Amino acid sequence: MRVDVLTLFPEMFPGVLNGSILGKASEKGSVSYHITDFRQFTTNKHQKVDDYPFGGGAGMVLMPQPLFDAVHSVCAEDDAQPRIILTSPQGKPFTQRDAEDLSAEQRLIFICGHYEGFDERIPQHLVTDEFSVGDFVMTGGELAAMSMIDSIVRLLPGVLGNETSAVTDSFSDGLLEHPHYTRPADFRGMKVPDILLSGNHEKIAEWRHKESLRRTYMRRPDLLKNRQYSEIEKKWLAEFKKTNERIK
Amino acid sequence: MRVDVLTLFPEMFPGVLNGSILGKASEKGSVSYHITDFRQFTTNKHQKVDDYPFGGGAGMVLMPQPLFDAVHSVCAEDDAQPRIILTSPQGKPFTQRDAEDLSAEQRLIFICGHYEGFDERIPQHLVTDEFSVGDFVMTGGELAAMSMIDSIVRLLPGVLGNETSAVTDSFSDGLLEHPHYTRPADFRGMKVPDILLSGNHEKIAEWRHKESLRRTYMRRPDLLKNRQYSEIEKKWLAEFKKTNERIK
Repeated sequence: MRVDVLTLFPEMFPGVLNGSILGKASEKGSVSYHITDFRQFTTNKHQKVDDYPFGGGAGMVLMPQPLFDAVHSVCAEDDAQPRIILTSPQGKPFTQRDAEDLSAEQRLIFICGHYEGFDERIPQHLVTDEFSVGDFVMTGGELAAMSMIDSIVRLLPGVLGNETSAVTDSFSDGLLEHPHYTRPADFRGMKVPDILLSGNHEKIAEWRHKESLRRTYMRRPDLLKNRQYSEIEKKWLAEFKKTNERIK
Repeated sequence: MRVDVLTLFPEMFPGVLNGSILGKASEKGSVSYHITDFRQFTTNKHQKVDDYPFGGGAGMVLMPQPLFDAVHSVCAEDDAQPRIILTSPQGKPFTQRDAEDLSAEQRLIFICGHYEGFDERIPQHLVTDEFSVGDFVMTGGELAAMSMIDSIVRLLPGVLGNETSAVTDSFSDGLLEHPHYTRPADFRGMKVPDILLSGNHEKIAEWRHKESLRRTYMRRPDLLKNRQYSEIEKKWLAEFKKTNERIK
Protein backbone atom coordinates (compact mmCIF):
# COMPACT_ATOMS: atom_id res chain seq x y z
CA MET A 1 0.00 0.00 0.00
CA ARG A 2 1.16 3.53 -0.80
CA VAL A 3 0.08 6.25 1.65
CA ASP A 4 0.46 9.92 0.75
CA VAL A 5 -0.14 12.72 3.22
CA LEU A 6 -0.60 16.34 2.16
CA THR A 7 0.10 18.64 5.09
CA LEU A 8 1.51 22.03 6.10
CA PHE A 9 3.31 20.35 9.03
CA PRO A 10 5.45 17.54 7.58
CA GLU A 11 7.71 17.58 10.66
CA MET A 12 4.89 16.07 12.73
CA PHE A 13 5.03 12.73 10.88
CA PRO A 14 8.45 11.01 11.06
CA GLY A 15 8.38 10.43 14.83
CA VAL A 16 5.06 8.63 14.48
CA LEU A 17 5.42 6.84 11.14
CA ASN A 18 8.99 5.63 11.69
CA GLY A 19 8.42 4.19 15.14
CA SER A 20 6.76 1.10 16.53
CA ILE A 21 4.52 -1.03 14.31
CA LEU A 22 4.01 1.66 11.65
CA GLY A 23 7.76 1.87 11.13
CA LYS A 24 8.18 -1.90 11.02
CA ALA A 25 5.39 -2.17 8.44
CA SER A 26 7.29 0.17 6.15
CA GLU A 27 10.63 -1.62 6.76
CA LYS A 28 8.93 -4.88 5.74
CA GLY A 29 7.61 -3.24 2.57
CA SER A 30 3.92 -3.62 3.51
CA VAL A 31 3.44 0.13 3.15
CA SER A 32 5.33 3.21 1.95
CA TYR A 33 4.72 6.70 3.35
CA HIS A 34 5.06 9.87 1.26
CA ILE A 35 4.70 13.17 3.08
CA THR A 36 4.21 16.30 0.96
CA ASP A 37 4.12 19.91 2.16
CA PHE A 38 1.38 21.34 -0.05
CA ARG A 39 2.59 24.89 0.52
CA GLN A 40 5.13 24.20 -2.24
CA PHE A 41 2.24 24.05 -4.76
CA THR A 42 0.91 27.53 -4.14
CA THR A 43 1.12 29.85 -7.15
CA ASN A 44 0.74 32.82 -4.80
CA LYS A 45 3.88 34.94 -4.68
CA HIS A 46 3.76 35.16 -0.88
CA GLN A 47 3.43 31.36 -0.61
CA LYS A 48 0.03 31.84 0.96
CA VAL A 49 -2.23 28.78 1.27
CA ASP A 50 -5.13 30.42 3.10
CA ASP A 51 -7.27 33.54 2.86
CA TYR A 52 -10.18 35.28 4.61
CA PRO A 53 -13.61 33.65 4.36
CA PHE A 54 -16.10 35.08 1.89
CA GLY A 55 -19.00 36.54 3.84
CA GLY A 56 -16.80 37.53 6.79
CA GLY A 57 -15.99 35.84 10.06
CA ALA A 58 -13.00 34.87 12.15
CA GLY A 59 -10.19 32.54 11.11
CA MET A 60 -8.56 31.67 7.80
CA VAL A 61 -9.72 29.21 5.16
CA LEU A 62 -7.47 26.94 3.06
CA MET A 63 -7.65 27.98 -0.61
CA PRO A 64 -8.51 25.37 -3.22
CA GLN A 65 -5.61 25.94 -5.65
CA PRO A 66 -2.63 24.56 -3.67
CA LEU A 67 -4.51 21.40 -2.66
CA PHE A 68 -5.99 20.68 -6.10
CA ASP A 69 -2.54 21.01 -7.66
CA ALA A 70 -0.83 18.97 -4.91
CA VAL A 71 -3.31 16.11 -5.33
CA HIS A 72 -2.84 16.10 -9.10
CA SER A 73 0.91 16.06 -8.69
CA VAL A 74 1.09 13.13 -6.24
CA CYS A 75 -1.56 11.21 -8.21
CA ALA A 76 0.77 11.29 -11.21
CA GLU A 77 3.52 9.54 -9.22
CA ASP A 78 1.75 6.17 -9.19
CA ASP A 79 -0.74 4.40 -11.47
CA ALA A 80 -2.92 2.94 -8.71
CA GLN A 81 -6.30 4.65 -8.35
CA PRO A 82 -6.27 6.37 -4.94
CA ARG A 83 -8.94 6.98 -2.33
CA ILE A 84 -8.55 10.67 -1.45
CA ILE A 85 -9.45 11.28 2.17
CA LEU A 86 -10.10 14.60 3.87
CA THR A 87 -9.95 14.72 7.66
CA SER A 88 -12.56 17.05 9.14
CA PRO A 89 -14.91 17.26 12.13
CA GLN A 90 -17.80 17.44 9.63
CA GLY A 91 -16.99 14.07 8.06
CA LYS A 92 -18.46 10.62 8.53
CA PRO A 93 -17.34 9.17 11.88
CA PHE A 94 -14.42 6.83 11.11
CA THR A 95 -14.99 3.29 12.40
CA GLN A 96 -13.22 -0.06 12.44
CA ARG A 97 -15.31 -1.02 9.39
CA ASP A 98 -13.83 1.93 7.47
CA ALA A 99 -10.34 0.87 8.55
CA GLU A 100 -11.04 -2.63 7.19
CA ASP A 101 -12.48 -1.23 3.98
CA LEU A 102 -9.53 1.12 3.38
CA SER A 103 -6.97 -1.57 4.25
CA ALA A 104 -8.01 -3.35 1.02
CA GLU A 105 -6.98 -0.34 -1.13
CA GLN A 106 -3.67 -0.06 -2.95
CA ARG A 107 -3.35 3.64 -2.49
CA LEU A 108 -4.57 6.30 -0.03
CA ILE A 109 -4.04 10.06 -0.08
CA PHE A 110 -4.79 11.97 3.13
CA ILE A 111 -5.40 15.72 3.09
CA CYS A 112 -4.88 17.42 6.45
CA GLY A 113 -6.95 20.54 6.97
CA HIS A 114 -5.75 23.33 9.20
CA TYR A 115 -6.72 26.85 10.34
CA GLU A 116 -10.44 27.60 10.62
CA GLY A 117 -11.34 25.23 7.79
CA PHE A 118 -11.02 24.56 4.08
CA ASP A 119 -12.76 25.87 1.00
CA GLU A 120 -15.87 23.75 0.43
CA ARG A 121 -14.85 23.06 -3.19
CA ILE A 122 -12.17 20.73 -1.77
CA PRO A 123 -14.61 18.20 -0.21
CA GLN A 124 -17.10 18.72 -3.04
CA HIS A 125 -14.86 18.23 -6.03
CA LEU A 126 -11.48 16.84 -4.99
CA VAL A 127 -11.90 14.08 -2.41
CA THR A 128 -13.58 10.67 -2.34
CA ASP A 129 -14.09 10.44 1.44
CA GLU A 130 -14.48 12.90 4.32
CA PHE A 131 -13.88 11.33 7.73
CA SER A 132 -13.95 12.56 11.32
CA VAL A 133 -12.18 10.67 14.11
CA GLY A 134 -14.48 11.99 16.82
CA ASP A 135 -16.78 14.72 18.03
CA PHE A 136 -14.02 17.04 19.12
CA VAL A 137 -11.94 19.70 17.39
CA MET A 138 -8.17 19.64 16.88
CA THR A 139 -5.80 22.33 15.61
CA GLY A 140 -5.34 20.39 12.38
CA GLY A 141 -6.06 17.16 10.57
CA GLU A 142 -2.59 15.67 11.07
CA LEU A 143 -3.36 13.63 14.19
CA ALA A 144 -6.62 12.43 12.65
CA ALA A 145 -4.74 11.28 9.53
CA MET A 146 -2.06 9.53 11.61
CA SER A 147 -4.75 7.78 13.69
CA MET A 148 -6.52 6.49 10.57
CA ILE A 149 -3.21 5.42 9.02
CA ASP A 150 -2.33 3.51 12.20
CA SER A 151 -5.67 1.70 12.32
CA ILE A 152 -5.46 0.80 8.61
CA VAL A 153 -1.80 -0.24 8.40
CA ARG A 154 -2.03 -2.60 11.39
CA LEU A 155 -4.66 -4.57 9.44
CA LEU A 156 -2.36 -5.17 6.43
CA PRO A 157 -1.31 -8.83 6.13
CA GLY A 158 1.83 -9.65 8.09
CA VAL A 159 2.04 -6.35 9.97
CA LEU A 160 0.89 -7.56 13.40
CA GLY A 161 3.15 -10.33 14.68
CA ASN A 162 0.29 -12.38 15.97
CA GLU A 163 -2.36 -12.72 13.27
CA THR A 164 -5.12 -13.36 15.77
CA SER A 165 -4.57 -10.08 17.60
CA ALA A 166 -6.49 -8.02 15.06
CA VAL A 167 -9.38 -10.48 15.02
CA THR A 168 -10.19 -10.26 18.72
CA ASP A 169 -10.14 -6.46 18.81
CA SER A 170 -12.87 -4.32 20.22
CA PHE A 171 -15.54 -3.56 17.58
CA SER A 172 -14.53 -6.34 15.16
CA ASP A 173 -17.38 -8.51 16.52
CA GLY A 174 -19.54 -5.54 17.50
CA LEU A 175 -18.71 -5.70 21.22
CA LEU A 176 -16.14 -3.99 23.41
CA GLU A 177 -13.25 -6.21 24.43
CA HIS A 178 -13.48 -8.17 27.70
CA PRO A 179 -11.13 -7.30 30.61
CA HIS A 180 -7.59 -8.68 30.55
CA TYR A 181 -5.44 -9.70 33.50
CA THR A 182 -1.80 -10.72 33.75
CA ARG A 183 0.72 -11.48 36.47
CA PRO A 184 0.79 -11.17 39.43
CA ALA A 185 -2.48 -12.83 40.45
CA ASP A 186 -2.44 -10.70 43.60
CA PHE A 187 -1.00 -7.22 43.05
CA ARG A 188 -0.88 -5.24 46.30
CA GLY A 189 -4.15 -6.82 47.42
CA MET A 190 -5.92 -6.39 44.06
CA LYS A 191 -6.81 -9.82 42.78
CA VAL A 192 -7.46 -11.46 39.43
CA PRO A 193 -10.93 -13.11 39.10
CA ASP A 194 -10.72 -16.76 40.18
CA ILE A 195 -12.26 -18.07 36.97
CA LEU A 196 -9.20 -16.95 34.94
CA LEU A 197 -6.93 -19.07 37.15
CA SER A 198 -9.19 -22.15 36.94
CA GLY A 199 -7.75 -23.69 33.78
CA ASN A 200 -11.30 -24.41 32.54
CA HIS A 201 -11.08 -23.00 29.03
CA GLU A 202 -14.75 -23.40 28.22
CA LYS A 203 -15.82 -21.47 31.32
CA ILE A 204 -13.16 -18.83 30.67
CA ALA A 205 -14.41 -18.29 27.09
CA GLU A 206 -17.94 -17.96 28.42
CA TRP A 207 -16.89 -15.49 31.13
CA ARG A 208 -15.07 -13.36 28.57
CA HIS A 209 -18.02 -13.34 26.20
CA LYS A 210 -20.35 -12.33 29.04
CA GLU A 211 -18.00 -9.59 30.28
CA SER A 212 -17.70 -8.23 26.72
CA LEU A 213 -21.47 -8.02 26.47
CA ARG A 214 -21.81 -6.57 30.00
CA ARG A 215 -19.26 -3.87 29.30
CA THR A 216 -20.85 -2.94 25.98
CA TYR A 217 -24.31 -2.88 27.56
CA MET A 218 -23.08 -0.68 30.40
CA ARG A 219 -20.80 1.70 28.53
CA ARG A 220 -21.89 1.76 24.91
CA PRO A 221 -25.50 0.60 24.51
CA ASP A 222 -25.45 2.44 21.13
CA LEU A 223 -23.24 -0.35 19.74
CA LEU A 224 -25.93 -2.97 20.50
CA LYS A 225 -28.71 -1.26 18.56
CA ASN A 226 -28.82 -3.62 15.57
CA ARG A 227 -27.31 -6.69 17.21
CA GLN A 228 -28.73 -10.17 16.59
CA TYR A 229 -28.46 -11.75 20.03
CA SER A 230 -27.73 -15.42 20.61
CA GLU A 231 -29.83 -17.33 23.17
CA ILE A 232 -27.18 -17.13 25.86
CA GLU A 233 -26.71 -13.40 25.18
CA LYS A 234 -30.44 -12.85 25.65
CA LYS A 235 -30.27 -14.60 29.02
CA TRP A 236 -27.29 -12.47 30.11
CA LEU A 237 -28.98 -9.27 28.96
CA ALA A 238 -32.07 -10.05 31.02
CA GLU A 239 -29.79 -10.56 34.01
CA PHE A 240 -27.98 -7.20 33.44
CA LYS A 241 -31.31 -5.41 33.07
CA LYS A 242 -32.64 -6.90 36.28
CA THR A 243 -29.68 -5.73 38.31
CA ASN A 244 -29.83 -2.46 36.38
CA GLU A 245 -26.13 -2.44 35.74
CA ARG A 246 -25.68 0.65 33.66
CA ILE A 247 -23.26 3.41 34.52
CA LYS A 248 -24.37 6.95 35.22
CA MET B 1 -1.35 23.31 32.78
CA ARG B 2 1.05 20.44 33.29
CA VAL B 3 0.60 17.45 30.97
CA ASP B 4 2.38 14.15 31.69
CA VAL B 5 2.39 11.26 29.25
CA LEU B 6 3.39 7.73 30.27
CA THR B 7 4.34 5.73 27.20
CA LEU B 8 6.65 3.01 25.87
CA PHE B 9 7.26 5.11 22.73
CA PRO B 10 8.48 8.54 23.88
CA GLU B 11 10.08 9.19 20.47
CA MET B 12 6.59 9.58 18.94
CA PHE B 13 5.90 12.80 20.85
CA PRO B 14 8.42 15.60 20.15
CA GLY B 15 7.51 16.00 16.45
CA VAL B 16 3.89 16.54 17.42
CA LEU B 17 4.17 18.45 20.71
CA ASN B 18 6.95 20.81 19.61
CA GLY B 19 5.34 21.86 16.32
CA SER B 20 2.52 24.13 15.33
CA ILE B 21 0.09 25.42 17.95
CA LEU B 22 0.99 22.81 20.60
CA GLY B 23 4.62 23.93 20.45
CA LYS B 24 3.70 27.61 20.61
CA ALA B 25 1.47 26.96 23.62
CA SER B 26 4.42 25.50 25.48
CA GLU B 27 6.78 28.32 24.40
CA LYS B 28 4.25 30.82 25.78
CA GLY B 29 4.12 28.92 29.07
CA SER B 30 0.43 27.96 28.78
CA VAL B 31 1.34 24.28 29.11
CA SER B 32 4.35 22.09 29.88
CA TYR B 33 4.77 18.57 28.50
CA HIS B 34 6.53 15.79 30.41
CA ILE B 35 7.03 12.51 28.57
CA THR B 36 8.01 9.48 30.65
CA ASP B 37 8.99 6.03 29.37
CA PHE B 38 7.32 3.82 31.99
CA ARG B 39 9.58 0.88 31.11
CA GLN B 40 12.13 2.51 33.43
CA PHE B 41 9.84 1.72 36.39
CA THR B 42 9.71 -2.02 35.90
CA THR B 43 11.20 -4.03 38.77
CA ASN B 44 11.50 -7.01 36.43
CA LYS B 45 15.13 -7.93 35.75
CA HIS B 46 14.43 -8.30 31.99
CA GLN B 47 12.78 -4.85 31.88
CA LYS B 48 9.53 -6.51 30.91
CA VAL B 49 6.35 -4.43 31.05
CA ASP B 50 3.94 -7.05 29.68
CA ASP B 51 3.08 -10.70 30.19
CA TYR B 52 0.72 -13.40 28.92
CA PRO B 53 -2.98 -13.03 29.77
CA PHE B 54 -4.37 -15.18 32.58
CA GLY B 55 -6.85 -17.62 31.06
CA GLY B 56 -4.96 -17.86 27.78
CA GLY B 57 -5.36 -16.10 24.47
CA ALA B 58 -3.29 -14.18 21.95
CA GLY B 59 -1.34 -11.02 22.59
CA MET B 60 0.41 -9.54 25.58
CA VAL B 61 -1.07 -7.56 28.46
CA LEU B 62 0.57 -4.59 30.23
CA MET B 63 1.37 -5.52 33.82
CA PRO B 64 0.11 -3.29 36.64
CA GLN B 65 3.39 -2.76 38.52
CA PRO B 66 5.34 -0.48 36.12
CA LEU B 67 2.33 1.79 35.54
CA PHE B 68 1.30 2.05 39.19
CA ASP B 69 4.85 2.99 40.13
CA ALA B 70 5.26 5.41 37.20
CA VAL B 71 2.06 7.24 38.13
CA HIS B 72 3.11 7.52 41.76
CA SER B 73 6.49 8.86 40.71
CA VAL B 74 5.23 11.59 38.36
CA CYS B 75 2.46 12.53 40.82
CA ALA B 76 5.13 13.37 43.36
CA GLU B 77 6.73 15.90 41.00
CA ASP B 78 3.92 18.43 41.36
CA ASP B 79 1.40 19.33 44.06
CA ALA B 80 -1.58 19.84 41.75
CA GLN B 81 -4.18 17.06 41.92
CA PRO B 82 -4.12 15.33 38.50
CA ARG B 83 -6.82 13.76 36.39
CA ILE B 84 -5.32 10.40 35.33
CA ILE B 85 -6.55 9.41 31.89
CA LEU B 86 -6.25 6.02 30.23
CA THR B 87 -6.71 5.85 26.46
CA SER B 88 -8.55 2.72 25.36
CA PRO B 89 -11.15 1.62 22.81
CA GLN B 90 -13.34 0.51 25.74
CA GLY B 91 -13.50 3.99 27.25
CA LYS B 92 -16.12 6.70 27.15
CA PRO B 93 -16.16 8.36 23.71
CA PHE B 94 -14.14 11.58 24.04
CA THR B 95 -16.11 14.66 22.99
CA GLN B 96 -15.65 18.41 22.75
CA ARG B 97 -17.40 18.68 26.12
CA ASP B 98 -14.70 16.48 27.69
CA ALA B 99 -12.02 18.66 26.06
CA GLU B 100 -13.66 21.74 27.62
CA ASP B 101 -13.96 20.02 30.99
CA LEU B 102 -10.32 18.87 31.02
CA SER B 103 -9.04 22.25 29.81
CA ALA B 104 -10.08 23.65 33.22
CA GLU B 105 -7.74 21.27 35.08
CA GLN B 106 -4.30 22.20 36.33
CA ARG B 107 -2.79 18.83 35.70
CA LEU B 108 -3.40 15.85 33.39
CA ILE B 109 -1.59 12.50 33.25
CA PHE B 110 -2.15 10.36 30.16
CA ILE B 111 -1.41 6.62 30.18
CA CYS B 112 -0.89 5.12 26.73
CA GLY B 113 -1.85 1.45 26.45
CA HIS B 114 -0.12 -0.83 23.98
CA TYR B 115 0.00 -4.49 22.93
CA GLU B 116 -3.22 -6.47 23.27
CA GLY B 117 -4.38 -4.45 26.24
CA PHE B 118 -3.71 -3.63 29.87
CA ASP B 119 -4.34 -5.37 33.15
CA GLU B 120 -7.84 -4.45 34.31
CA ARG B 121 -6.54 -3.35 37.71
CA ILE B 122 -5.12 -0.25 35.95
CA PRO B 123 -8.51 1.21 34.88
CA GLN B 124 -10.15 -0.05 38.07
CA HIS B 125 -7.75 1.27 40.68
CA LEU B 126 -5.28 3.71 39.12
CA VAL B 127 -7.06 6.08 36.73
CA THR B 128 -9.80 8.68 37.06
CA ASP B 129 -10.99 8.60 33.42
CA GLU B 130 -10.95 6.09 30.57
CA PHE B 131 -11.52 7.66 27.15
CA SER B 132 -11.76 6.38 23.60
CA VAL B 133 -11.25 8.68 20.60
CA GLY B 134 -13.36 6.57 18.28
CA ASP B 135 -14.76 3.17 17.37
CA PHE B 136 -11.57 1.91 15.78
CA VAL B 137 -8.44 0.19 17.05
CA MET B 138 -4.91 1.58 16.94
CA THR B 139 -1.56 -0.07 17.71
CA GLY B 140 -1.29 1.99 20.87
CA GLY B 141 -2.76 4.82 22.87
CA GLU B 142 -0.16 7.39 21.84
CA LEU B 143 -2.10 8.96 18.96
CA ALA B 144 -5.27 9.00 21.06
CA ALA B 145 -3.40 10.82 23.86
CA MET B 146 -1.89 13.33 21.40
CA SER B 147 -5.32 13.97 19.87
CA MET B 148 -6.88 14.65 23.27
CA ILE B 149 -3.94 16.86 24.28
CA ASP B 150 -4.32 18.85 21.05
CA SER B 151 -8.05 19.39 21.54
CA ILE B 152 -7.55 20.41 25.19
CA VAL B 153 -4.50 22.67 24.81
CA ARG B 154 -6.03 24.71 21.97
CA LEU B 155 -8.81 25.71 24.40
CA LEU B 156 -6.41 27.16 27.00
CA PRO B 157 -6.67 30.97 27.25
CA GLY B 158 -4.36 32.76 24.79
CA VAL B 159 -3.34 29.66 22.81
CA LEU B 160 -5.37 30.31 19.66
CA GLY B 161 -4.46 33.67 18.13
CA ASN B 162 -8.04 34.53 17.36
CA GLU B 163 -10.16 34.04 20.48
CA THR B 164 -13.34 33.59 18.48
CA SER B 165 -11.99 30.66 16.50
CA ALA B 166 -12.63 28.17 19.26
CA VAL B 167 -16.14 29.48 19.86
CA THR B 168 -17.45 28.87 16.33
CA ASP B 169 -16.11 25.31 16.13
CA SER B 170 -18.12 22.30 15.13
CA PHE B 171 -19.90 20.76 18.14
CA SER B 172 -19.53 23.78 20.44
CA ASP B 173 -23.14 24.79 19.64
CA GLY B 174 -24.27 21.23 18.97
CA LEU B 175 -24.17 21.54 15.17
CA LEU B 176 -21.55 20.76 12.53
CA GLU B 177 -19.84 23.82 11.11
CA HIS B 178 -21.26 25.48 7.98
CA PRO B 179 -19.28 25.40 4.69
CA HIS B 180 -16.47 27.93 4.21
CA TYR B 181 -15.33 29.54 0.98
CA THR B 182 -12.38 31.78 0.17
CA ARG B 183 -10.73 33.26 -2.92
CA PRO B 184 -11.08 32.92 -5.86
CA ALA B 185 -14.86 33.32 -6.27
CA ASP B 186 -14.60 31.23 -9.44
CA PHE B 187 -11.96 28.47 -9.25
CA ARG B 188 -11.73 26.57 -12.54
CA GLY B 189 -15.46 26.88 -13.06
CA MET B 190 -16.39 25.97 -9.45
CA LYS B 191 -18.18 28.93 -7.93
CA VAL B 192 -18.79 30.32 -4.46
CA PRO B 193 -22.51 30.66 -3.52
CA ASP B 194 -23.76 34.14 -4.52
CA ILE B 195 -25.11 34.90 -1.04
CA LEU B 196 -21.56 34.99 0.40
CA LEU B 197 -20.57 37.70 -2.08
CA SER B 198 -23.71 39.79 -1.41
CA GLY B 199 -22.39 41.85 1.50
CA ASN B 200 -25.71 41.31 3.35
CA HIS B 201 -24.42 40.17 6.72
CA GLU B 202 -27.82 39.31 8.14
CA LYS B 203 -28.64 37.04 5.21
CA ILE B 204 -25.17 35.49 5.35
CA ALA B 205 -25.55 34.67 9.05
CA GLU B 206 -28.92 33.09 8.31
CA TRP B 207 -27.53 31.05 5.39
CA ARG B 208 -24.69 29.78 7.56
CA HIS B 209 -27.02 28.79 10.37
CA LYS B 210 -29.28 26.96 7.91
CA GLU B 211 -26.36 25.15 6.22
CA SER B 212 -25.03 24.10 9.64
CA LEU B 213 -28.38 22.60 10.50
CA ARG B 214 -28.79 21.01 7.04
CA ARG B 215 -25.37 19.39 7.23
CA THR B 216 -25.97 18.08 10.74
CA TYR B 217 -29.41 16.75 9.74
CA MET B 218 -27.98 15.03 6.67
CA ARG B 219 -24.74 13.64 8.08
CA ARG B 220 -25.14 13.35 11.82
CA PRO B 221 -28.80 13.18 12.84
CA ASP B 222 -27.55 11.58 16.08
CA LEU B 223 -26.26 15.00 17.19
CA LEU B 224 -29.77 16.48 16.97
CA LYS B 225 -31.42 13.99 19.30
CA ASN B 226 -31.86 16.24 22.34
CA ARG B 227 -31.79 19.59 20.56
CA GLN B 228 -34.22 22.39 21.52
CA TYR B 229 -35.08 23.88 18.12
CA SER B 230 -35.79 27.57 17.56
CA GLU B 231 -38.82 28.53 15.42
CA ILE B 232 -36.73 29.18 12.31
CA GLU B 233 -34.91 25.87 12.79
CA LYS B 234 -38.24 24.05 12.92
CA LYS B 235 -39.22 25.65 9.61
CA TRP B 236 -35.93 24.65 7.99
CA LEU B 237 -36.16 21.10 9.30
CA ALA B 238 -39.64 20.70 7.81
CA GLU B 239 -38.19 21.87 4.50
CA PHE B 240 -35.28 19.38 4.66
CA LYS B 241 -37.67 16.57 5.52
CA LYS B 242 -39.95 17.40 2.59
CA THR B 243 -37.13 17.28 0.08
CA ASN B 244 -35.82 14.22 1.90
CA GLU B 245 -32.28 15.49 1.94
CA ARG B 246 -30.46 12.80 3.81
CA ILE B 247 -27.40 11.07 2.50
CA LYS B 248 -27.17 7.34 1.98
